[in-house]
Amino acid sequence: MPGPLSIEDLAKAVDRATGKALGARIIGDASRTIASVAPLEVAQADALSFLANPRYRRFAAATRAGALVLSEADRHALFASGSTTCVLIVCEAAYTWFAFAAQALAPQDEVQPGCAPSAVVHPSARIDRSATIGPLVVIDEGGSIAAGVQIGAGCYVGRDVRILEATRLHPAVRIYDGCRVGARCLVHSGAVIGADGFGFAPFQGRWVKIPQTGAVLIGDDVEIGAGTTIDRGAMGDTVIEDGVKIDNQVQIGHNCRIGAYSAIAGCVGIAGSATIGRRCQLGGASMIQGHITIADDTIISGATAVTHDVREAGFYTGIYPFMRNREWERNAVLLRHLDELRERIRRLETQLRTRQTESDR
Amino acid sequence: MPGPLSIEDLAKAVDRATGKALGARIIGDASRTIASVAPLEVAQADALSFLANPRYRRFAAATRAGALVLSEADRHALFASGSTTCVLIVCEAAYTWFAFAAQALAPQDEVQPGCAPSAVVHPSARIDRSATIGPLVVIDEGGSIAAGVQIGAGCYVGRDVRILEATRLHPAVRIYDGCRVGARCLVHSGAVIGADGFGFAPFQGRWVKIPQTGAVLIGDDVEIGAGTTIDRGAMGDTVIEDGVKIDNQVQIGHNCRIGAYSAIAGCVGIAGSATIGRRCQLGGASMIQGHITIADDTIISGATAVTHDVREAGFYTGIYPFMRNREWERNAVLLRHLDELRERIRRLETQLRTRQTESDR
Amino acid sequence: MPGPLSIEDLAKAVDRATGKALGARIIGDASRTIASVAPLEVAQADALSFLANPRYRRFAAATRAGALVLSEADRHALFASGSTTCVLIVCEAAYTWFAFAAQALAPQDEVQPGCAPSAVVHPSARIDRSATIGPLVVIDEGGSIAAGVQIGAGCYVGRDVRILEATRLHPAVRIYDGCRVGARCLVHSGAVIGADGFGFAPFQGRWVKIPQTGAVLIGDDVEIGAGTTIDRGAMGDTVIEDGVKIDNQVQIGHNCRIGAYSAIAGCVGIAGSATIGRRCQLGGASMIQGHITIADDTIISGATAVTHDVREAGFYTGIYPFMRNREWERNAVLLRHLDELRERIRRLETQLRTRQTESDR
Repeated sequence: MPGPLSIEDLAKAVDRATGKALGARIIGDASRTIASVAPLEVAQADALSFLANPRYRRFAAATRAGALVLSEADRHALFASGSTTCVLIVCEAAYTWFAFAAQALAPQDEVQPGCAPSAVVHPSARIDRSATIGPLVVIDEGGSIAAGVQIGAGCYVGRDVRILEATRLHPAVRIYDGCRVGARCLVHSGAVIGADGFGFAPFQGRWVKIPQTGAVLIGDDVEIGAGTTIDRGAMGDTVIEDGVKIDNQVQIGHNCRIGAYSAIAGCVGIAGSATIGRRCQLGGASMIQGHITIADDTIISGATAVTHDVREAGFYTGIYPFMRNREWERNAVLLRHLDELRERIRRLETQLRTRQTESDR
Repeated sequence: MPGPLSIEDLAKAVDRATGKALGARIIGDASRTIASVAPLEVAQADALSFLANPRYRRFAAATRAGALVLSEADRHALFASGSTTCVLIVCEAAYTWFAFAAQALAPQDEVQPGCAPSAVVHPSARIDRSATIGPLVVIDEGGSIAAGVQIGAGCYVGRDVRILEATRLHPAVRIYDGCRVGARCLVHSGAVIGADGFGFAPFQGRWVKIPQTGAVLIGDDVEIGAGTTIDRGAMGDTVIEDGVKIDNQVQIGHNCRIGAYSAIAGCVGIAGSATIGRRCQLGGASMIQGHITIADDTIISGATAVTHDVREAGFYTGIYPFMRNREWERNAVLLRHLDELRERIRRLETQLRTRQTESDR
Repeated sequence: MPGPLSIEDLAKAVDRATGKALGARIIGDASRTIASVAPLEVAQADALSFLANPRYRRFAAATRAGALVLSEADRHALFASGSTTCVLIVCEAAYTWFAFAAQALAPQDEVQPGCAPSAVVHPSARIDRSATIGPLVVIDEGGSIAAGVQIGAGCYVGRDVRILEATRLHPAVRIYDGCRVGARCLVHSGAVIGADGFGFAPFQGRWVKIPQTGAVLIGDDVEIGAGTTIDRGAMGDTVIEDGVKIDNQVQIGHNCRIGAYSAIAGCVGIAGSATIGRRCQLGGASMIQGHITIADDTIISGATAVTHDVREAGFYTGIYPFMRNREWERNAVLLRHLDELRERIRRLETQLRTRQTESDR
């Protein structure tokens, strides 16, 4: 059913999906047919493209896309004269409109429900007949696979794992015993859910393992990227709430709680027992220390280490600016001696005050 | 055998495991039965909990756990009046006592020795009859699997790999040719042991590969986290000594040596030929440059880049403090110009000295 | 055919491979037989070793290697007297000479072309008869595997994936639908090529997925490390050009382009739509922000966050220096208040100027 659509039908599809919340205005021939989405630079007459990042304005001005979603401000800046062959779809939430349109145009994989003959499924596992179990999948004792679930080649689903309806595991996802994945989730290859948290107590110069007896509970509509690892709780559970989006190679320690609708970019590390609020955004390669709490609606820049609680929503950053190596060498040395610089300023201030006093006499 | 125990029996179990090294004092009814461990906030009357981090004192004060391990100082602060229904187990090494108790209570997986019919085992591999080889495992030519080893579903054990007794590989661990894993190790899903180190020489604008002909040698009682990668040596071997604990998504380059009983938290990167001492602790997302040496008993903070040798044990840190983005913008600009600030201070000092001299005349 | 060689024959092999571009001079008995390569400290009389890093000069001075490649300067410094039993191979590009020699000496794996009986290959896949398909591999509909390709145990090759000649996938590599891997590539275990990019638009407090419809195109002679993830493009493709070398646990976001012959060390994160030039070197755990461009021949230090375009080739760094924790605490506090330090300097300058003016009257 998805595939080429007129711009008019595309707009209707977006309206249906959004409850008409976006309110786009179409300038040009709405009967033109759109077959796919494409970047500004390469889009042809049957493609939809979008402009959201001002960096790409010059590509938008020159695009040969059949239709272009953009904000009123961008339309005014680029096409005020009206001289474009491109149908303009003017919408303040241009990127969001584009997202829904792209979903309407996206080809859907055809899946054949059933269990590949090479899958190894424990007889006690309950698998809905509308689920698809790929080749060389292992489903262990007591596993429960709901309607419409797709399990890609080579996945491992541990003992008593529950996977709710319409969730898709790409090939080679591993889920340890006792974990739960909600409905309509998407999990990418190499993700590991439920490995042991890193818990050891010191004893006579060596480490004693704390058995990790909790699980991982993942809500609905969660996306988990390739190679991401989410550890099981030490005692209680690690919890990923509904609608959280997690990119690749993210590490989430035991007993963390990630609030609903938060987004976590690639290479982020979150140490154990951290609590991330709802609707937070953690930039790529940021690092969250253990046992801390981050307020709802907080945004953390990429490459920032969060070492204590964030009590108030806001936009936080801690990045050493990069520069020519020679310049860095000079500055880094001074950085080690900031306290000496301050001391010299103090002495200067004292000297000046003394003189002032002397000359006032 | 593990399962519900009286507090008295639990204490005996801890004493046996520790040679009575911890010396706990029990306050309250030692005949009470404990079935499991649980966090302070949710523990019920049949659960053991612990207090080690002062952040959680208020939860300890209100816990409904059947038994609570804590230090004398915490006991005094919270329960001096004696009015608690909770049995108190007072021990200076509260967390360590708890670790041993949790091990005594932990349910043990039942494993059935033998080889899953779907495993692909080379006829030349030697597999002890008490080992468990899971479904869809591949064991290549010359592999050697000792007594009591458990190999989870979908693992790959390369040519001439040796795995010593009682080690457990969770599903989907990959071990390249010629590597060795010691006894009683635990390796988590997605770990890759023995991939090529990153060794290339430049030649006419391209890269020439240095064949990586060493191996990885892993000692006894090592734990390796999910998605962790340990590269084989370029010529000599990469060595992980006994008792090292490695968290998830750690990268250890070729020819590193990690000293015994060191602990490496998640997302750490250790570049090639680095030597980490014994009993070191590397915080999450810290980064260790290649070819450097870190002294025994060194602690490195999370998110710290170690760019030269650490000759003396101690606690080292290098983290850009995070702050409101606006504040960061202001400070980061100044950071690029520390040398100018110093120059201005110098000029001020010179001017003042000159004046002093002049006014002294 | 590879194996023990006289030093003379080894030199000829290097000359053949390099078109005599390296020009080494041999001092000593060139008929001596070399069987393998080894590190300076452990090399025996039948081994070749090398000196490239001045840190290891003392090991070179004491080496018992049969032959040693080193620069003229190192030869002069260490062996000016001529008193060594070691055959010296003097070459300015010592490490490169060593690389080619090591390749000549490296034992070659024997592979038997054909398809393991446990592999699951879709009938529509085209597999060259000289390719080797390991056990428990899955090759999906329309996959195309060229001559001499080796696919290790448990790999997943998605729909319509093309793998060109002589490429080797180590066990457990996952390649999503529609991606292409060039000729003579080497991909390590756990790598994931073609997972969805991280693209979401906000809508009413939740995230709307942008379907990721591009692919990953990988050139020839590319090496990809263990656990590395390269995301498919959102619309256009993610492109890795020829000769790029990528270490372990690197994350490359959607629509990135990595220029030919660039080298990317372990744990690097490159956010979406970044363009890395040709012959760049990204140090371990560096982080490249999305949508930025880095000039050809740029070198980025490890642990450096690149937050804006690099227009000019050069060596760039941004690392917070590490120090004793106590010292760091003091300095980090001041770092938050650099603007106050500057303000105090300003005030001092103003005061001094005012006095100067006053005293000039």
